Amino acid sequence: MTQAGTDSVGIVEAQMFHSNAPFALQCGEVLPAFDLTFETYGQLDSSASNAVLVCHALSGNHHAAGYHDQADAKPGWWDNCIGPGKPIDTNRFFVVSLNNLGGCHGSTGPLSINPATGSAYGPDFPVVTVKDWVASQALLADHLDIRQFAAVIGGSLGAMQAMQWAIDQPSRLRAAVLIASAARLSAQNIAFNEIARQAITSDPAFHEGHYRGKNANPDLGLMLARMVGHVTYLSDDGMRQKFGRELKSGDIRLGREVEFQVESYLHYQGRSFSQRFDANSYILMTRALDYFDPAADFDDDLAACLAVTECSFCVLSFSTDWRFPSSRSKEIVDALITAKKNVVSAIIESEHGHDSFLLPIDRYFNVLGTYLRRLVRTSVDSQENNAA
Amino acid sequence: MTQAGTDSVGIVEAQMFHSNAPFALQCGEVLPAFDLTFETYGQLDSSASNAVLVCHALSGNHHAAGYHDQADAKPGWWDNCIGPGKPIDTNRFFVVSLNNLGGCHGSTGPLSINPATGSAYGPDFPVVTVKDWVASQALLADHLDIRQFAAVIGGSLGAMQAMQWAIDQPSRLRAAVLIASAARLSAQNIAFNEIARQAITSDPAFHEGHYRGKNANPDLGLMLARMVGHVTYLSDDGMRQKFGRELKSGDIRLGREVEFQVESYLHYQGRSFSQRFDANSYILMTRALDYFDPAADFDDDLAACLAVTECSFCVLSFSTDWRFPSSRSKEIVDALITAKKNVVSAIIESEHGHDSFLLPIDRYFNVLGTYLRRLVRTSVDSQENNAA
Repeated sequence: MTQAGTDSVGIVEAQMFHSNAPFALQCGEVLPAFDLTFETYGQLDSSASNAVLVCHALSGNHHAAGYHDQADAKPGWWDNCIGPGKPIDTNRFFVVSLNNLGGCHGSTGPLSINPATGSAYGPDFPVVTVKDWVASQALLADHLDIRQFAAVIGGSLGAMQAMQWAIDQPSRLRAAVLIASAARLSAQNIAFNEIARQAITSDPAFHEGHYRGKNANPDLGLMLARMVGHVTYLSDDGMRQKFGRELKSGDIRLGREVEFQVESYLHYQGRSFSQRFDANSYILMTRALDYFDPAADFDDDLAACLAVTECSFCVLSFSTDWRFPSSRSKEIVDALITAKKNVVSAIIESEHGHDSFLLPIDRYFNVLGTYLRRLVRTSVDSQENNAA
Repeated sequence: MTQAGTDSVGIVEAQMFHSNAPFALQCGEVLPAFDLTFETYGQLDSSASNAVLVCHALSGNHHAAGYHDQADAKPGWWDNCIGPGKPIDTNRFFVVSLNNLGGCHGSTGPLSINPATGSAYGPDFPVVTVKDWVASQALLADHLDIRQFAAVIGGSLGAMQAMQWAIDQPSRLRAAVLIASAARLSAQNIAFNEIARQAITSDPAFHEGHYRGKNANPDLGLMLARMVGHVTYLSDDGMRQKFGRELKSGDIRLGREVEFQVESYLHYQGRSFSQRFDANSYILMTRALDYFDPAADFDDDLAACLAVTECSFCVLSFSTDWRFPSSRSKEIVDALITAKKNVVSAIIESEHGHDSFLLPIDRYFNVLGTYLRRLVRTSVDSQENNAA
């Protein structure tokens, strides 16, 4: 993959959506206004019917595809999937990707100035839920004159947003693509998130969230949090193949200065993450994950909760994903069938665990690309049928 | 289970074995002498042929069964399995249970005084391996006039010791019982151990291992390390059944002061652990786990490595144990079969993950008890056959 490649969206520029109206959050607090950073790829057609919304996961951001400048070494986080001829085909679709409210990549969040105090929100930024994200994304869609998305797509926490879109904005999307997700977290998943939060808040440099004011950053806590996340996003088999018991340094028989490759890799990934992600945002996003549970309002009946939806669904999962196993995707599929919704699903063989959703796996991309291509045909057909 | 129960070994007293001879460790360092704390349950028979050695896992100690005094609220860590009529039947067996070298429950370890300096070893205690443990346990056996154990038994890291016994001391045990274990850790397991170590060493109260001298203790780091361990010792299903998404406090819709039951449980377990376990010992024990790899000396050929063994083997694993899955036990069984050894194995259905090895699961205890009963018959038969 090179910058010059014909399958790249090329150089892209982040844009800013500024919403001036007071925005009431689910927690009861009201943001007087908010910003969302976003990018778009491809062209919106004249009927504004080819828009796709990409929702990011825990540590994602708005920069999903392309490069910010010629010198950029790395493209956006889902560049392998978004571009001309790729599964999310920018020759067909107008792709919208944003940084969620509460994030740390330009959208209003803990790093933003609280107009009420004149200083950054920090840990006092209100609790944000998946429902809030969908409501704010709907305002962004209004801003872009998109009445209905061809599809709302996401993996992991991103898929939860796509599901919430189908529930809260049923007429505003034709398809929801839910990848490597669950209708709510299990106790184990909550436990791993709490370990990550505990790692961050235990770091003395966290200062109860007021680290910026102290000119500090909980680097070690964020590093640990990321290490926990990273291990759980990979599979046992995948790690065996990638690292095995290879040593980076030392003599294991003498037990001297031993560092396994897997340790070295996790340290590197953890350190790199702590330099680019805000701790308060990370805590906020893990809480949004934990609290997501749309069926709770329906006596835990997911089919009843999904009854209101109007779109079709594509539910994908990966064979070695133990953090969001296929059995959890199957719960969603079963509920959709019970609710008599249009759903296709596939379990993709992959050794890469939860991280598979970010990787260019042939069958995965074939299924996703085929599903999305059919959506465009459907939209064209329906426009022809509806032509006055 | 009450103290007064007839299936309890009752009040027990820890004993101390003091070895005066210099003890050469695998790492090249020599301990001028060492102590091992141990307990025994049951009676050694006249031919000293009914002894069973119980080896502890990562956070275990010598106190495996019974109570230390009348007021003791909790019995030893494997009390459900060791006692009159229990699977490790003290009516038949003389059970020896010790705290390993490097531990923090009375045996020589980081808390002990280094005779060369006059102050505690702390982080300077040498690297100890599973091989070292077996060598030191063999000296304890000499001290107790046990030439041959009827069985050496352990779960997890304890099973690794039992396997090393079979390799290093082939004539000194008739059976090795390997429960919920592996012939070496996977990259994923090393990664989880490294996260635990990182949590401890990142805690500023760790002071590079010299916390005692600073009148400090890395409580938060140890708590985090234990939380990581604990989550990975349970299964996703088991946690769902035990905790689900039950709240301890707060309002999830408003996102206010939310604490899930699973979070509260992990905090409690973590805090309790940090009060009773020494951080340097924990690091040392996780390293012993990581470095264990007996087949490495045989070009990774486990069957070749096990060729030297003379005992029979019982290999048990649990259906939902994802930290030491049944597939890893099967690798051991396959190698033993290839090496033409006497082996029985069982996969026990249980929803409790790796922790299953500590729980009184009917089929598990039936299989273990039956296997061990046959060992005694065998020993009695063989004594009769060998009678001069």
